[in-house]
Amino acid sequence: MSLRELLESLIGRIEGAHAIMLMGRDCIAVDEVRRDTAGFDVQAMAVEYATVVKDIRRSIDVVGAGDLEEMTVTTANAVMVVRILNEEFFAVMVLSRDANPGKARFLLSTVVPELIRSVE
Amino acid sequence: MSLRELLESLIGRIEGAHAIMLMGRDCIAVDEVRRDTAGFDVQAMAVEYATVVKDIRRSIDVVGAGDLEEMTVTTANAVMVVRILNEEFFAVMVLSRDANPGKARFLLSTVVPELIRSVE
Repeated sequence: MSLRELLESLIGRIEGAHAIMLMGRDCIAVDEVRRDTAGFDVQAMAVEYATVVKDIRRSIDVVGAGDLEEMTVTTANAVMVVRILNEEFFAVMVLSRDANPGKARFLLSTVVPELIRSVE
Repeated sequence: MSLRELLESLIGRIEGAHAIMLMGRDCIAVDEVRRDTAGFDVQAMAVEYATVVKDIRRSIDVVGAGDLEEMTVTTANAVMVVRILNEEFFAVMVLSRDANPGKARFLLSTVVPELIRSVE
């Protein structure tokens, strides 16, 4: 399965998913699938998150809490699930507030090796 | 109920909870209850998170995704649930990896008004 097909399959399995992106540490989206239903700029959000992920990694490193695996951010309008793939890449899924973030987290965790293979 | 009693009651209701802290925007812990079972410096972690919360708030503001409500960070060794109370304060609960973060998220969300009252 190509990266695009994989992203399309993931977004298709989560009701209320606005977008899914595979991002590099350099804030560049390797690929993305968007439904444009979010009502805000999901790509700008993903780019901003690259900085946040960097900050959190540094913080975790400072206190020795082990490698970052996942981050979920809930705002008044959306839920964003960030899944770390490796040192270089992470996946971001943007969901509506009434979507099921637990399902998104589970699905993302199951496709980590496949996502990594697709960018190597 | 005093803030200390409230924090003790919260940590007592979550199996695998290492610590709970009420933090100010200035990175100072208003109060905290710790079990010292985390194996890393949970207070240093909470202080680091104040910076991360600030970054995420700025990011969310940039893209218009609505006010930040909650953040969950999962690392190899721990889960940290951050609940925003208002502009000034947030609560952090540090859990072991085998704890139930959903229960922690739910409990924290139910006591937001009580936590705010206790610091006012």
